[in-house]
Amino acid sequence: MATILNKMREMKPTPELPAALRALIGKGVDAIDTPALVIDLDAMQRNITRMADFARKHGIRWRPHAKMHKSVALARLQMQAGAVGVCVQKTAEAEVMVAGGVHDVYISNEVIHPHKLARVAALAHQVAAVAGGQLAIAVDSIEGVARLAQAMNDARTRTGKSAIIHVLVEIDVGQRRCGVAPGAAAVALALEVRKHAALHFAGLQAYHGKAQHLRSAAERRETISIVVDDVVYTRKLIEAKGLKVGLVTGAGTGTLVREAASGVYGELQAGSFMFMDADYAANERDPAQPQFEHALFVKSQVISSSATQAVCDAGHKCHAIDSGLPTVHNPDGEALWIFQNGGDEHGVLIPAGSQGYPPELDATVWLIPGHCDPTVNLHDHMIGVRGGLTHGKVERIIRVDARGALT
Amino acid sequence: MATILNKMREMKPTPELPAALRALIGKGVDAIDTPALVIDLDAMQRNITRMADFARKHGIRWRPHAKMHKSVALARLQMQAGAVGVCVQKTAEAEVMVAGGVHDVYISNEVIHPHKLARVAALAHQVAAVAGGQLAIAVDSIEGVARLAQAMNDARTRTGKSAIIHVLVEIDVGQRRCGVAPGAAAVALALEVRKHAALHFAGLQAYHGKAQHLRSAAERRETISIVVDDVVYTRKLIEAKGLKVGLVTGAGTGTLVREAASGVYGELQAGSFMFMDADYAANERDPAQPQFEHALFVKSQVISSSATQAVCDAGHKCHAIDSGLPTVHNPDGEALWIFQNGGDEHGVLIPAGSQGYPPELDATVWLIPGHCDPTVNLHDHMIGVRGGLTHGKVERIIRVDARGALT
Repeated sequence: MATILNKMREMKPTPELPAALRALIGKGVDAIDTPALVIDLDAMQRNITRMADFARKHGIRWRPHAKMHKSVALARLQMQAGAVGVCVQKTAEAEVMVAGGVHDVYISNEVIHPHKLARVAALAHQVAAVAGGQLAIAVDSIEGVARLAQAMNDARTRTGKSAIIHVLVEIDVGQRRCGVAPGAAAVALALEVRKHAALHFAGLQAYHGKAQHLRSAAERRETISIVVDDVVYTRKLIEAKGLKVGLVTGAGTGTLVREAASGVYGELQAGSFMFMDADYAANERDPAQPQFEHALFVKSQVISSSATQAVCDAGHKCHAIDSGLPTVHNPDGEALWIFQNGGDEHGVLIPAGSQGYPPELDATVWLIPGHCDPTVNLHDHMIGVRGGLTHGKVERIIRVDARGALT
Repeated sequence: MATILNKMREMKPTPELPAALRALIGKGVDAIDTPALVIDLDAMQRNITRMADFARKHGIRWRPHAKMHKSVALARLQMQAGAVGVCVQKTAEAEVMVAGGVHDVYISNEVIHPHKLARVAALAHQVAAVAGGQLAIAVDSIEGVARLAQAMNDARTRTGKSAIIHVLVEIDVGQRRCGVAPGAAAVALALEVRKHAALHFAGLQAYHGKAQHLRSAAERRETISIVVDDVVYTRKLIEAKGLKVGLVTGAGTGTLVREAASGVYGELQAGSFMFMDADYAANERDPAQPQFEHALFVKSQVISSSATQAVCDAGHKCHAIDSGLPTVHNPDGEALWIFQNGGDEHGVLIPAGSQGYPPELDATVWLIPGHCDPTVNLHDHMIGVRGGLTHGKVERIIRVDARGALT
């Protein structure tokens, strides 16, 4: 165990917080150098509370996706509020979470390479030694199941201890990415999982990513209704073979109210609700969805200006643009400017209305990223502010522990 | 000086190479875990040699943009081949370069915040203590010039030593981002620079970013002809005031042959030639441009597959998509697959022709990133391979020293 932990530490060194960041704590928002990723801690906490209340009310567990925040500290905060653990997408993310003391982790993705599966099996043995520890993983191929079983056997031989890994069969419910078709193919995989003593067939992964950003609430509702039909049908076929489908897991911030109301899903994977990015905010809100607030911002500064436009120091090396450009946030009212793409290091700001004017040289401009997950991944730290973006103070610095944890 | 160096080190800790990466050296390409950023060192070296030969032939200096590779080791490699120093876009990047021993650095961007200008001034004093050391910076506002002068004065008072910073007046030659209009506004700024003893008016920054990716060589040529006219006109006005325009700097990989042939530009800033991404490869090559090769790849692996498509483990957390999706590279021939966006952690691969088939589970897939600069910024290390992507061996690991150096 000590060896594994040491290996983890070597893989992802956790240096002391840089002095310049440490020195920020207790200072006003003005002291934050730009560009920087800033969390409105009050808004984030309200989002977490709303999600916890929502899950409690619906009697459903939540296991937020840590691929979004990549932070051990935020995973712990979510778990203190009631989350049962975290999802991750990568083996390296799981390693960071476990090394940070988060012992209930689900890799909601397929892992195929024997080297990576050896790391997965090592993690499964590591968390098995902790009370309440559990590792789960998704599969969508017979080959993947066989390799996972082999890796678990090898780890048992190596460590002299046995452990169980929970296995979710992923079905493609419309995402058109990973997963087998609902129905017979899923049954075959579940039966395959049952063959191996170290593998526990835990249930179904049924996540529809593309449904999250269908703009109309009605469309999202109808799409998830079809998903639920697919899940119920597949579950029935699997249970007819004498296998229990203990868990159905899925749902994102866009659709979670529907999975929660389905009576079929046991866990919600939604993660973005905590930060709410511009893309999710562009959705028509489902009346049943908690009112989540923007809590993640890029603070930037105007470094060049003219009569018609201004240029700030934030480009797409500090916010992801895969789901659209950032919107401009005015902590004191209506947005005054529109952000246009200025390349890797710049953003171009033009007035939002025909009567407006661009921001002046030196002005602070707050951006709401289009997509929070890959935005967070661009930063080493997030700066947590309490008391709002105008008069607030820096309360804590949150490390993006799994930034760049790609493998 | 020691204090500044210590501060640099604290700001950007440079930990030992992780053991898993150290262990790769000498191994075959197969041993590289995915997804990973891989450099074909032979191709990169040929690109550098072609650029060095080109510059020598045209009697022009080259100062490649280190915002692209963000690596001290690669900056040194370029300087060994004849580059006079590097450009950077951010103060933090300049700090990383200087801390790594690169002492001729040009910040080709505007810096406005007094805190950042204090860092710039500290760097100027630091490199002034080194033989041949020099720091330069771009300006486009009177306020920016005044603040820079103030910061230089403060640093002189603090250190008890005087230093000079080279100042380039940025003119907007069509990029529509930073820079003042060619002509009178540039003259006014140059005169403003002259007022301050610690500022040396070094010349003009005239970079047309948007021209780099005009697809037709003729369009790029015509666009740069107009740029050159603007530069000549502005230079004439400034020189009429008794100020020498010692240097005109600009040019990217798409247009460099035109700036080089202009007789007006003194330095080329092109950086991407070294890696050549998919976006630059989509340009019609100017007959006068050296034939640069792709040298930067993302190695990925298929983790899920069906009869119609496959899914690999590389999404836009490991390659930038601002300038288009990656293309698929076949080291042994024609590209067989087309990459489609699969989100943050996945890529979807479909056959390139109607008769084709998707790659099999476990297959290695090589991607050519759409845009090299922000792709490199997503990674901590680049894995340098010698002898090709099929039978080559890992020769060295190159750290992305200035990854995430945003401020």
